[in-house]
Amino acid sequence: MLRLTTIIPLLLVSLSFAEEDAPKLDTGDTAWLLVSSALVMLMTLPGLALFYGGMAKRKDTLNTIAMSFVAYCLASLVWFAYGYSLAFGEDIGGIIGSASKIFLSGVGVDSLQDTIPELLFVMFQLTFAAITVALVSGSLVERLKFSAWVIFVVLWVSLVYVPIAHWVWGGGFLAEDGALDFAGGTVVHINAGIAGLVGAIILGRRRDAVLLPNNLPLVVLGAGLLWFGWFGFNAGSAVGANGLAAVAMLNTNIATATAALAWMFTEWLHRKKPTVLGLASGVIAGLVSITPAAGFVNVFGAFIIGLTAGPICYFMVAKVKEKLGYDDALDVFGIHGVAGIIGAILTGVFADPSVNEAGKGLLYGNPGQVITQIWSVIVTVVYSGVMTAIILFVAKALTGLRVKEEEEITGLDRSQHGESAYNIS
Amino acid sequence: MLRLTTIIPLLLVSLSFAEEDAPKLDTGDTAWLLVSSALVMLMTLPGLALFYGGMAKRKDTLNTIAMSFVAYCLASLVWFAYGYSLAFGEDIGGIIGSASKIFLSGVGVDSLQDTIPELLFVMFQLTFAAITVALVSGSLVERLKFSAWVIFVVLWVSLVYVPIAHWVWGGGFLAEDGALDFAGGTVVHINAGIAGLVGAIILGRRRDAVLLPNNLPLVVLGAGLLWFGWFGFNAGSAVGANGLAAVAMLNTNIATATAALAWMFTEWLHRKKPTVLGLASGVIAGLVSITPAAGFVNVFGAFIIGLTAGPICYFMVAKVKEKLGYDDALDVFGIHGVAGIIGAILTGVFADPSVNEAGKGLLYGNPGQVITQIWSVIVTVVYSGVMTAIILFVAKALTGLRVKEEEEITGLDRSQHGESAYNIS
Amino acid sequence: MLRLTTIIPLLLVSLSFAEEDAPKLDTGDTAWLLVSSALVMLMTLPGLALFYGGMAKRKDTLNTIAMSFVAYCLASLVWFAYGYSLAFGEDIGGIIGSASKIFLSGVGVDSLQDTIPELLFVMFQLTFAAITVALVSGSLVERLKFSAWVIFVVLWVSLVYVPIAHWVWGGGFLAEDGALDFAGGTVVHINAGIAGLVGAIILGRRRDAVLLPNNLPLVVLGAGLLWFGWFGFNAGSAVGANGLAAVAMLNTNIATATAALAWMFTEWLHRKKPTVLGLASGVIAGLVSITPAAGFVNVFGAFIIGLTAGPICYFMVAKVKEKLGYDDALDVFGIHGVAGIIGAILTGVFADPSVNEAGKGLLYGNPGQVITQIWSVIVTVVYSGVMTAIILFVAKALTGLRVKEEEEITGLDRSQHGESAYNIS
Repeated sequence: MLRLTTIIPLLLVSLSFAEEDAPKLDTGDTAWLLVSSALVMLMTLPGLALFYGGMAKRKDTLNTIAMSFVAYCLASLVWFAYGYSLAFGEDIGGIIGSASKIFLSGVGVDSLQDTIPELLFVMFQLTFAAITVALVSGSLVERLKFSAWVIFVVLWVSLVYVPIAHWVWGGGFLAEDGALDFAGGTVVHINAGIAGLVGAIILGRRRDAVLLPNNLPLVVLGAGLLWFGWFGFNAGSAVGANGLAAVAMLNTNIATATAALAWMFTEWLHRKKPTVLGLASGVIAGLVSITPAAGFVNVFGAFIIGLTAGPICYFMVAKVKEKLGYDDALDVFGIHGVAGIIGAILTGVFADPSVNEAGKGLLYGNPGQVITQIWSVIVTVVYSGVMTAIILFVAKALTGLRVKEEEEITGLDRSQHGESAYNIS
Repeated sequence: MLRLTTIIPLLLVSLSFAEEDAPKLDTGDTAWLLVSSALVMLMTLPGLALFYGGMAKRKDTLNTIAMSFVAYCLASLVWFAYGYSLAFGEDIGGIIGSASKIFLSGVGVDSLQDTIPELLFVMFQLTFAAITVALVSGSLVERLKFSAWVIFVVLWVSLVYVPIAHWVWGGGFLAEDGALDFAGGTVVHINAGIAGLVGAIILGRRRDAVLLPNNLPLVVLGAGLLWFGWFGFNAGSAVGANGLAAVAMLNTNIATATAALAWMFTEWLHRKKPTVLGLASGVIAGLVSITPAAGFVNVFGAFIIGLTAGPICYFMVAKVKEKLGYDDALDVFGIHGVAGIIGAILTGVFADPSVNEAGKGLLYGNPGQVITQIWSVIVTVVYSGVMTAIILFVAKALTGLRVKEEEEITGLDRSQHGESAYNIS
Repeated sequence: MLRLTTIIPLLLVSLSFAEEDAPKLDTGDTAWLLVSSALVMLMTLPGLALFYGGMAKRKDTLNTIAMSFVAYCLASLVWFAYGYSLAFGEDIGGIIGSASKIFLSGVGVDSLQDTIPELLFVMFQLTFAAITVALVSGSLVERLKFSAWVIFVVLWVSLVYVPIAHWVWGGGFLAEDGALDFAGGTVVHINAGIAGLVGAIILGRRRDAVLLPNNLPLVVLGAGLLWFGWFGFNAGSAVGANGLAAVAMLNTNIATATAALAWMFTEWLHRKKPTVLGLASGVIAGLVSITPAAGFVNVFGAFIIGLTAGPICYFMVAKVKEKLGYDDALDVFGIHGVAGIIGAILTGVFADPSVNEAGKGLLYGNPGQVITQIWSVIVTVVYSGVMTAIILFVAKALTGLRVKEEEEITGLDRSQHGESAYNIS
C-alpha cells in the first residue's frame, strides 16, 4: 500500500504541474481582453473624435474629428509594421525592443501572452498607441495643417510612444527602476500632455484663442464613451478577468465620479454656476488621474486621487493657462498632463500591497516609491518634450505647420477637407 | 485491494468537494460581469443623459443632461460610502443590511460573490442605483433647480433605493415573501416611475407643458445605447455567463422589438403616422416590461409581455396623462412605472420553471405568484411615493424646488449652468 | 498492485472522456458571444441608423433612421418565429433548414451549440439577419414609402436572407461546395449590396439625386460604432474566445485602418482634399472587405485586402455610379456590394491554413478556392437580385413604392412620420 499513497499524489502533482508549467489560454481572460481592446478602440473613434469635435468651433469640427480618426488608422499600421516589435520585443539594453517581431513575424494564432493569445495582446496595445497620439491633437486644433498632422502622427508614434512604452511596460529601464504605471499615466497621459503643451507653444496662439464648443451634447457623448471605454483601458490592463480587474474598474469609477463632482463644486463656488463642460472635463481629469493607480490602490485611495485631480485641473484650465499664455486649445496639458502627474505621484503614495503585491507606496512604508514615480515623470516629460519639438520642426520643414491666416478664419473644415459639419437649417 | 477502492473515491470526492465547497472565481463569469457593469454605466451616461437631453426643449438640453450626469456621480459615492453595505450587508430584520461593509470595509481583492469578485458585484450594483435615480429626473426637467436635484439624489438613493434593493435582492422581506424580480422591475422601474409621478405632481406643471424634442437623432442614439446597455442590465443579472444569461438576453431583445412594433402600429392606426419618437418610446416600454421577467419566462412569454406593454404605455402617454393633468415631462411614470407594473405582474403569470426553477407562475400552476407580485408592487408604490414626497419637501426647505418664472422661460441651460447646447449657426 | 495501475489510468481516461465527449458550456466563450451579440445589435441601432441618418438630407433624416430601426425589430420577430429554424435547422436537400425549431421549439436553456447556449447562438445570428436587411435601406432612402419598407423587410428576410444564410452557414449547398465566408461577405454584404442596387434601379432616381449629409459628426459616430460593433461581428464569428477570435479582431482592425487611409489618400490625390466622409466610407469598405476573410487570412493578407478595397470602392462611388446612372443613394452597392465581392474573392487567394486549417487559398497552393469563391458570389448575386426584384413588385402591388412627388420635395420626415429631426434654432 505504500506505493499506492506514493503514486496517487505523484499523479496529481504531475497533473497540476502540467497545468501550471506551460501557460494555457484562458477563455474568460481572453473574452475580457477582446472586449477591452474593442473598448479602447471606441475611446478614440468615435469617443475622443467627438469629445474634441464637439468642443471645437463650428467651422473646425470636422478637421478636429479627422485628426483623431486618421491618428487611429496610422498608428494601427505603425504598430503592425514595427511598433509592437520595438515596444514589446526582447529588451535591448533597457532602451528598445528587438526587431524580431516586425510585421508580427513569428506571432501565430497559437502564440500566447500569459493566458491570452499574443495577437490579442498586440491588438490591445495597438489601441493604446493610437489613443495616445490622438490625444495630442487637442492642443493643436484650429490651426495645424492636416498634412503636417499626418507626418507628425507617424513620427511621434514611432519615436516617442514606442520607446516610452518599452521603458515602462516592455521591460525597459523604467520598469527596471520599479516605476508603477498600471494603465498608462506616464506612457499615455503625461506623454500626450507634454507633447500637446510643446506643440501648442511651437504652433503659437490661434487668431481667435477662445473655447467656443459648437455642440456640447457631442462633448457629453464623447466623455461618456471615454468613461465607458476607459473600463477596458484600466481594468483590461489586468490582462485577465479577475479581482485585479474588478478593483481597477471600481477604482476608475469612484475616482472619476469624485473628480467630476469636485470640479463641479469648485466651479460652482468659484464662478457661481456648475457647467456641463466642467462635469465632462472633471470626468477626464478623474479618469486620467486614476489610470496609473487603478490596479495598485484601494478604493479609498482612488477617492482621494479623484478628489485631488478635479480641483487642481480646474484651476490649471481656468486660471494658470490664461496666466502663462500658451494656447492649449482643448486643454490636453491642463487635464491629461496635470492629472497624469498627480496620478503618477499619488500612486507612489497610495499603492497598497494588499491590493497588488507588485506595488507598495509611501503610506505602506515605502517612501522611495514616490521618488521612483517622480523620476519616471521627469524622464517622460523631458523625452517627450524634446522629441515632440524635434518632430514638429521636421514636419514644418516638410509641409509647414500652420494653415494660412484666411484659412484659419474661414475654418479648417472648408480649407483642409472641403466639407461642412452640418446642413441642418 | 479494498482499501484502494475506498481511497480513490474518497480522494476524488474530496477534490470535487473542494471545488464545490468554497466558491471559486470563474473567469468567464467575471468577464461577463465586467462587461455588464460597463454596459449599465453606459445606460446612464451617455445613454439616458442623451435620451432625455434630446427630448428636452432646446433651451433645457444641458440641464437635462446634467441631471443624469450628476446623478451617476453622486450615486457612485453614496454606494461606496454606505449604500452597498446597507443594501447587501447581512440582513437585519428583513428591513435593511448591516453597516459592517461601509466604505467597503473588509471587501478585499479576493472576496468573492458566488463566482465573481465581490468588488465587481459592488460595481455592478452601483450602476443600478445610479440609473434608477437618474430615471426620476425625466419627470422633473425644465423647472427644477439644479441645487435641489443634487440634494434629492443623495437623499433618494439613501432612503428609497437602498432599502427597496435590500428588500428584494439583499435578503429582505420581499425576497422572503417570494417576490420575483430578475433585474429590477420593482426596484428600478416602478420605483423610479412612482417617484417621477409624485415629483411631477409636487413640482407642478411647467409654464409650457409640451414635448418639443430638440434633437430626435440624439433620442434615437440614447434609445439605442439603452437597448445595448440593457443586455448588461438583464443578462448581467444572471451573475454569470450561462444559459440563464442567454435566455435573458434573447427575451430582452424579443420583448423590446415586439413592444416597439406594437407601439408603432398602435400609433399608426390611432394617429395615422408612425413616429420615430414612438419607436424609441416603445423600445423603452419593452425593455422595462421584460426586466423583472427576463430570467424567468420563455421567449413566448417575452413576446406576450412586449405585446402588452407597447400599446398600454402608448395610451398612458397619449391619452391618460393628458386626462389626469399631471406634467410628467418625459413620461417616466407612463413608461417606466406602467411597463414596470405590467412586467412585474406578468412575471407572476409567465414564470416558467423549465427556464428557471426559482420561479413558477400562474400558467404553470402557481396562481399565488401573481398575488405575491402585486404585493411587491404595492409595497414599492407606497414606500417610494411617500418617501419621495418627504424628500422633496426637505429639498424645498433647503433650496426651494422650482426655478424662477423668468428662468424657466429663458431656459435652464442659461440660468442653471450659464451655457448653451449648440453654437452651430 | 497490477490492478492499481490499471484502475487509475482508467479513471483518469474516463474523466477526460466525459469532458471531451459531450459538448460542455464554456463560460469564457459564452461571455464573448454575449458581448458579440450586443455589439452586432449596436451596429444596426444606433450605429447604422445614425450612419445613414447623418448622410441623409435634413428633411429625410428621421425616415432614414426609422428604416434601420424598424428593420431590426421586424427581423427579430421573423427570426424567432421561423427564420432561425429555416436557416439553421437540419438541412433539407442543401436548400433550406427544417421547420422543427419554429418558435424555437425544443431550444431550451440547457441546449448547447458547441460550447455556448443555443439560445445565445440564436441571438447572435438574429443580429446578423437584422443588419443585413437594414443595410439595404441605404439604397432606397429619400423616396420609398415607409409602408412598402415594412413589407419589404419581412419578405426579404424570409425569402432572401434565410435561404442564403442556410446555404453558406447552415449546412446548405454552398457550404458543401467549400465556399469560405467567415463572417458574412456573401451572406450579408454582397447580398445587401445587390439588393440595394436592384432596388435603386427599380425605384428610380430621386428628384434631387445628390448626397447632402445633414450631420457629418453623426456619420462619424455611426462609422465608429460600426467599427466597434464589427469586432463582435467578425471576432464573434469564431464562436469562442480563442486565437481565432484574436486574429479575426486584429485583421479587422488592420484591413479597416488600411482601407480608410487608402481611400483618403486616393481622394486626396484625385480631388485635392481628404474628406471626413471619405474616411468614414473607407472604414466601411475595409470592414466589409475583411468580413469573409477575417478568420482565414494572416495580418499581411488583411493589409492587402484593405489596400485593395479602399481605392476600388472610392472609384465605384466617385466615378462609376455617376457613369452608370443608377441612384444608389448612400452607396450600398458601391461599398458593401463591391467590397464584399473583393473580400470574397481575395479570401480565396489569401486563406492561410496556418491561421485556420479550414481554409487554403491560391497562395498556399489551392487555386480552386478562388473558383469556389467566385461561384458563391455568382449564386448570391443572381439569387438576391432576382428575389429582390420580385419582392419589390409584390410590395408595389400592395402599397405602391414611391411617395408622391410633393412628399419627396417636402421630405419624408414630415410626410411619413409627421416629425422633424431638429428643433434647435
